[in-house]
Amino acid sequence: MNTSACNSVSLFTESPLELDSGATLSPVNVGFETYGELNEGRSNAILICHALTGDQYVASNHPITGKPGWWERIIGPGKLVDTNKYFVICSNVLGSCLGTTGPKEINPATEKPWGIDFPVITIRDMVKVQAALLDHLGVDTLFALIGGSMGGMQVLEWLATFPERLHSTIALATAARHTAQNIALHEVGRQSVMADPNWNGGRYYEKEAKPDKGLSVARMTAHITYLSEDALTRKFGRNLQSRDAITFGFDADFQVESYLRYQGSTFVDRFDANSYLYITRAMDYLDIAGRHDGRLADAFKNAAHVRCCIISFSTDWLYPTAENKRIVHALNAAGVPVSFAEIESPHGHDAFLLEEPEMDQMIEGFISAAAKARGLSS
Amino acid sequence: MNTSACNSVSLFTESPLELDSGATLSPVNVGFETYGELNEGRSNAILICHALTGDQYVASNHPITGKPGWWERIIGPGKLVDTNKYFVICSNVLGSCLGTTGPKEINPATEKPWGIDFPVITIRDMVKVQAALLDHLGVDTLFALIGGSMGGMQVLEWLATFPERLHSTIALATAARHTAQNIALHEVGRQSVMADPNWNGGRYYEKEAKPDKGLSVARMTAHITYLSEDALTRKFGRNLQSRDAITFGFDADFQVESYLRYQGSTFVDRFDANSYLYITRAMDYLDIAGRHDGRLADAFKNAAHVRCCIISFSTDWLYPTAENKRIVHALNAAGVPVSFAEIESPHGHDAFLLEEPEMDQMIEGFISAAAKARGLSS
Repeated sequence: MNTSACNSVSLFTESPLELDSGATLSPVNVGFETYGELNEGRSNAILICHALTGDQYVASNHPITGKPGWWERIIGPGKLVDTNKYFVICSNVLGSCLGTTGPKEINPATEKPWGIDFPVITIRDMVKVQAALLDHLGVDTLFALIGGSMGGMQVLEWLATFPERLHSTIALATAARHTAQNIALHEVGRQSVMADPNWNGGRYYEKEAKPDKGLSVARMTAHITYLSEDALTRKFGRNLQSRDAITFGFDADFQVESYLRYQGSTFVDRFDANSYLYITRAMDYLDIAGRHDGRLADAFKNAAHVRCCIISFSTDWLYPTAENKRIVHALNAAGVPVSFAEIESPHGHDAFLLEEPEMDQMIEGFISAAAKARGLSS
Repeated sequence: MNTSACNSVSLFTESPLELDSGATLSPVNVGFETYGELNEGRSNAILICHALTGDQYVASNHPITGKPGWWERIIGPGKLVDTNKYFVICSNVLGSCLGTTGPKEINPATEKPWGIDFPVITIRDMVKVQAALLDHLGVDTLFALIGGSMGGMQVLEWLATFPERLHSTIALATAARHTAQNIALHEVGRQSVMADPNWNGGRYYEKEAKPDKGLSVARMTAHITYLSEDALTRKFGRNLQSRDAITFGFDADFQVESYLRYQGSTFVDRFDANSYLYITRAMDYLDIAGRHDGRLADAFKNAAHVRCCIISFSTDWLYPTAENKRIVHALNAAGVPVSFAEIESPHGHDAFLLEEPEMDQMIEGFISAAAKARGLSS
């Protein structure tokens, strides 16, 4: 499916985007995709928020890899999120590298790529850019806002920052803060990138060699955290890769080694190393309760009219059920109506991207009830 | 405590060590430490097996770092493993870098450091070298054999390979095989080392620069796996490092980042990058049941006379209780007497190195009963 051309818009051209850091950005270009049509009442818009290394190609082929959209299983004509019925928007987050302003784009002040002169951003900064994109598209309120992992973090920041523009939200496999372990895992990824001499203090865009090795190792490490031990055992166990016996060497004897090396090597073709630094940093900085003296419920105090749905997965050890439940408790405490389920799945954190019938049922039921409440039922 | 000089012996000088890979090594130098005295009956020897990055300085100061021995809490005069009573031996494993033959030592054939021409070794190869060291020391049978993590893997290979030389064994926080997740985590460490251009295909010994950055990142990643999420949260949470607010940059804002960077940077001073490759590979290759058509019990069929003790820790996700229980079940099935406990601890895998009163009680009770059976009671 590819119902829309690759879109891009320049925002914050007149008044700059004020970032949480105090820095400003102007303009901010945003790469985005849309699917379906906005109805006359402008009441059928759904914004999809992508994860750390995701992008706007949620339901259309990726321009670099040529692969189908990352959530085409869910989004499309007649699908769970039905683009015959809804106007679906997905934009590349601030700091990323597929058309939205980020470290690889040109710094207007120097006319060179930003590199690590790009200001450090937050999840809330990403959300402010999304809100400006909705203004541009003529969408005042979202029928639904949906995101998993870092996408879920954006959902939470929307609830805290622009609740008046929301009707319903679904956040999957996420957290309202990064824990010490989350920060630690991201820090080793960043150190891996920065240890690569081709990173060159972030100034590699004009050079021939990029920090591919460092970024590849960072991706390999991260990839392990997206799967459960159980998933790795089921998928690979100790199976050997195209050989009958171990070779007593350092080649990829085991399938799991070969798989990880492949994940690392293909990632560098589609992702910018500096974007990886900035986006992981934004996630580490996330601590929504921290802005409210530790009371997460206070962040959601103006969201009591929003229908919320939180979904966690039993073997997700990156953003485990306990972290998702913290969100549910805070929403409850703030009087926000919230449905919650922990889905039993062997697939770890990545479960939200995979076929999980229980998850599908939950999303379907939630959207159809929300549509009814919004007067959108067919 | 420093009761012994730094010892080293050259073994396999006449007939070479035959490795599992089919390669041979001659001679094999072994760095080791001893504490206490061998009694007249030669019946009071205890061998301690160290973990991946451990060494023979179990109860004496480390020659490079100057720090106390890594298990001085347990081993010494009047301590749990009482060196007034027992003759305690600890040797640097084959492939390591503190006096035992490994990739940084000189290859007699070329008169240059081995580098990655060093043959790939296994845990069983390490154990064969330990057995030869015992021969040299005049120790036929061990009163006790104790090890945690990779040290526990050596204990298991001793039970499979030289059961007749054992009276009692304690294995802590270990496994009889490396799972897909274990292999995956080691593989990212190896790729991190190999991605460092200073690694130079393993030939860095004659150069000024070592692959310190790559090894440091490998260590940081590994270190996360040695702790539990709970331990990281208790120890660091989201605490900032010597600052009042986040800096919107890539410095170590968070204590956990600063801690990990320190762990990485100090590790490279005491450990050889190629040794890290070889020893992690040896662990990945471990699959004791694999040598017996998947029946782990068969590996222990000649060990029915050995008293065994297996200890796991509730928050160890590297070698979780389930893997330790597999060993217990196999020992039971082989008719080997085995005590087992899962210790409730928040400290993750590293718990075996820390103060854990329940663990101490278990070790004390087990050793004292074994001593009685051996006629060693005071």
